[in-house]
Amino acid sequence: MTQPFDAIDVIRAKRDGRPLTPEQIRWVVGAYTDRVVPDEQMSALLMAVFFRGMSADELAAWTQAMIDSGVRKDLSSLGCPTADKHSTGGVGDKITLPLAPLVAACGVAVPQLSGRGLGHTGGTLDKLESVPGWRADVGEEAYLAQLRDVGAVICAAGSDLAPADKVLYALRDVTGTVESIPLIASSIMSKKIAEGADALVLDVKTGSGAFMRDPADARTLARTMVGLGEAAGVRTVALVTAMDRPLGRSAGNAVEVAESVEVLAGGGPADVVELTLALAREMLAGVGRDDVDPADVLADGRAMDVWRRMVAAQGGDPDAPLPQPAERHVVTAPATGTLTRLDAYSLGVAAWRLGAGRARKEDPVSAAAGITWTAGVGEQVTAGQPLLELQTDDAARIPRALEALEGAIGVDTADEPLPLLLDRITA
Amino acid sequence: MTQPFDAIDVIRAKRDGRPLTPEQIRWVVGAYTDRVVPDEQMSALLMAVFFRGMSADELAAWTQAMIDSGVRKDLSSLGCPTADKHSTGGVGDKITLPLAPLVAACGVAVPQLSGRGLGHTGGTLDKLESVPGWRADVGEEAYLAQLRDVGAVICAAGSDLAPADKVLYALRDVTGTVESIPLIASSIMSKKIAEGADALVLDVKTGSGAFMRDPADARTLARTMVGLGEAAGVRTVALVTAMDRPLGRSAGNAVEVAESVEVLAGGGPADVVELTLALAREMLAGVGRDDVDPADVLADGRAMDVWRRMVAAQGGDPDAPLPQPAERHVVTAPATGTLTRLDAYSLGVAAWRLGAGRARKEDPVSAAAGITWTAGVGEQVTAGQPLLELQTDDAARIPRALEALEGAIGVDTADEPLPLLLDRITA
Repeated sequence: MTQPFDAIDVIRAKRDGRPLTPEQIRWVVGAYTDRVVPDEQMSALLMAVFFRGMSADELAAWTQAMIDSGVRKDLSSLGCPTADKHSTGGVGDKITLPLAPLVAACGVAVPQLSGRGLGHTGGTLDKLESVPGWRADVGEEAYLAQLRDVGAVICAAGSDLAPADKVLYALRDVTGTVESIPLIASSIMSKKIAEGADALVLDVKTGSGAFMRDPADARTLARTMVGLGEAAGVRTVALVTAMDRPLGRSAGNAVEVAESVEVLAGGGPADVVELTLALAREMLAGVGRDDVDPADVLADGRAMDVWRRMVAAQGGDPDAPLPQPAERHVVTAPATGTLTRLDAYSLGVAAWRLGAGRARKEDPVSAAAGITWTAGVGEQVTAGQPLLELQTDDAARIPRALEALEGAIGVDTADEPLPLLLDRITA
Repeated sequence: MTQPFDAIDVIRAKRDGRPLTPEQIRWVVGAYTDRVVPDEQMSALLMAVFFRGMSADELAAWTQAMIDSGVRKDLSSLGCPTADKHSTGGVGDKITLPLAPLVAACGVAVPQLSGRGLGHTGGTLDKLESVPGWRADVGEEAYLAQLRDVGAVICAAGSDLAPADKVLYALRDVTGTVESIPLIASSIMSKKIAEGADALVLDVKTGSGAFMRDPADARTLARTMVGLGEAAGVRTVALVTAMDRPLGRSAGNAVEVAESVEVLAGGGPADVVELTLALAREMLAGVGRDDVDPADVLADGRAMDVWRRMVAAQGGDPDAPLPQPAERHVVTAPATGTLTRLDAYSLGVAAWRLGAGRARKEDPVSAAAGITWTAGVGEQVTAGQPLLELQTDDAARIPRALEALEGAIGVDTADEPLPLLLDRITA
């Protein structure tokens, strides 16, 4: 079949810094998804994008082409506002688990299509799968029914959601073109826009455990994504938040579910509660429901009720005991003073090595593996007190996890932890 | 099989401007040639090289790895010095045809492995194939025997000569990564070094009809190639020469053979004679034979003798009439005055459209197609005098050739033609 454009012309234009037309972009993304443009041409184009970037117009066209490779869901039949949240990923970031039922309990439906973990950051689906019986795969009809009846679904995305992203991401992963802000932004936003929610809040992490270590890069990514969301008619706000230390007091799978249930029960670590409420307020404001205070809905048990119904609707037993590790190893505080460093990346790698994460997409994860800790950054510790507990199914994994933790803990050092909320970025 | 390196690490290092080690380079070039590293990873790496360039050390290692993908020929058994020439390609550039027999007649063997034309520049093999009976393919033994007996061979390269270049060039051609000085330099020099000559002269063209339109880029390419040749133990000199107008008075296949024979007979256009002698002197000097004056060898018919033996050795009949075109179309001078513009690129495209060149590697070329002209840049012309003659097998091709010539001819314009020899670049 004759093609309207030549991929080489598109590559050369981007390579030489000339703007791509919306028609060129629509064609190249579609033709790549349809396997008409081969991998070697797309990877050259992606590397040229890495160096040249994309203008706002180019990026909007690129993202739209990715959305149009599949279907943009229409949730208007639900008859209630919808809001969604995306985190760029961090260590101990279990916020989706309390947040989705909390916002649903406030009367706003939450269609949360989530992913699995890769590398040192965990995946929401992996965490929920530690609940006995819970299933990530929900059919299209059951998905809508659960949104209508329960108000919240956390499940795996179907293959019709931005299929261009699936093939582009797989290519970027093997060609050194993952670390490009326009490509990251379009990957995230194509899926989030296609999900069909009215409002979207983005939690853009920064610090050692985040994809964007530098706050300036995190702000640029946040601004880029907010622009894309708004251009597509989705009310979008981003919070730039700290990931120099992990969130809460746990990183892993079952341990993070347990901590989320504590939050839903009115307790839990202060930072998890604060961030959950901040994100809930943004989601509610995005659909004009500023009148509801999520703190009340968390305190009076309504959010917990939705959690239990949400877990049960996907086959999970909210009362079943969570998997427990076969082996536990305690790390004590090295000195007395203020805990000034608890490095997110180090803890993420340690939890991964204990079995909580995977190195390759097809690897299994351990539900019981992970780390818990007894003090957060800024708190007092005493030399010799138990500080971290490493949990695993396999004691042989502990030495490599301990290696990852070397230098991760600091008492009375000069480290200056980031504020939990660094920035709020709107259109 | 476990690989010693990960292609993603190599891509990322180049992408981020970190130097590649010789081991990484040797591995990635070899593994790509062996189809272990896939096209999409190599094309991402090539695009990163386009943006980041290569250091002299990296480029030397890259070129050596390309040479080592095949065999570096050893011509020492010939018992005489050997010298070779490479042109980066231009319009009407038939210099190899008189040059190879001329240098051979001076006692220096010329192992000239040549290519075919693509696009607006002609190919030496295509030109010689217009000689009835002449064959470009010469077996390894016949090649050495002809070098020994005749002193010159112009033939197609075998598949053992830098096979990495063959696969890399095919990939660059479809991924917008042709226009990179280190990649151009390594492509040319890997083949030329592998050919095994003691000395090499490079004719780096600049101007509208050349690959490097800008003289500064041509100088950079020349310096890069001279550095690579010298580092590999080959005495290498580059001349940077004019390609704003075509060489001589003809562009095509049989017409260029005819003009070359005129030069070998002691006549021919002054610029072709001047450049042939300049390149011959460099080749002779490169092997310490400055004592021979090629002008004498051209004048007394010894070069013509070698030409006839060289053509005959490859099955050609040096006395056979050359193919003639079915159709001729004359273009007259537009005004009276000095011919100040005869644009090389325009004439090259016109000759190509008349049938002398090919758009794709597998296309045939017409032996009789081409263009001849009656005056060169700097000469006087009279309005209405025949200036160009377009020659083709197919009259239907003429209108598109004339389109290519629009604006190509200028009389008394402000154009300032380049000097024929712009620069001489040595180590």
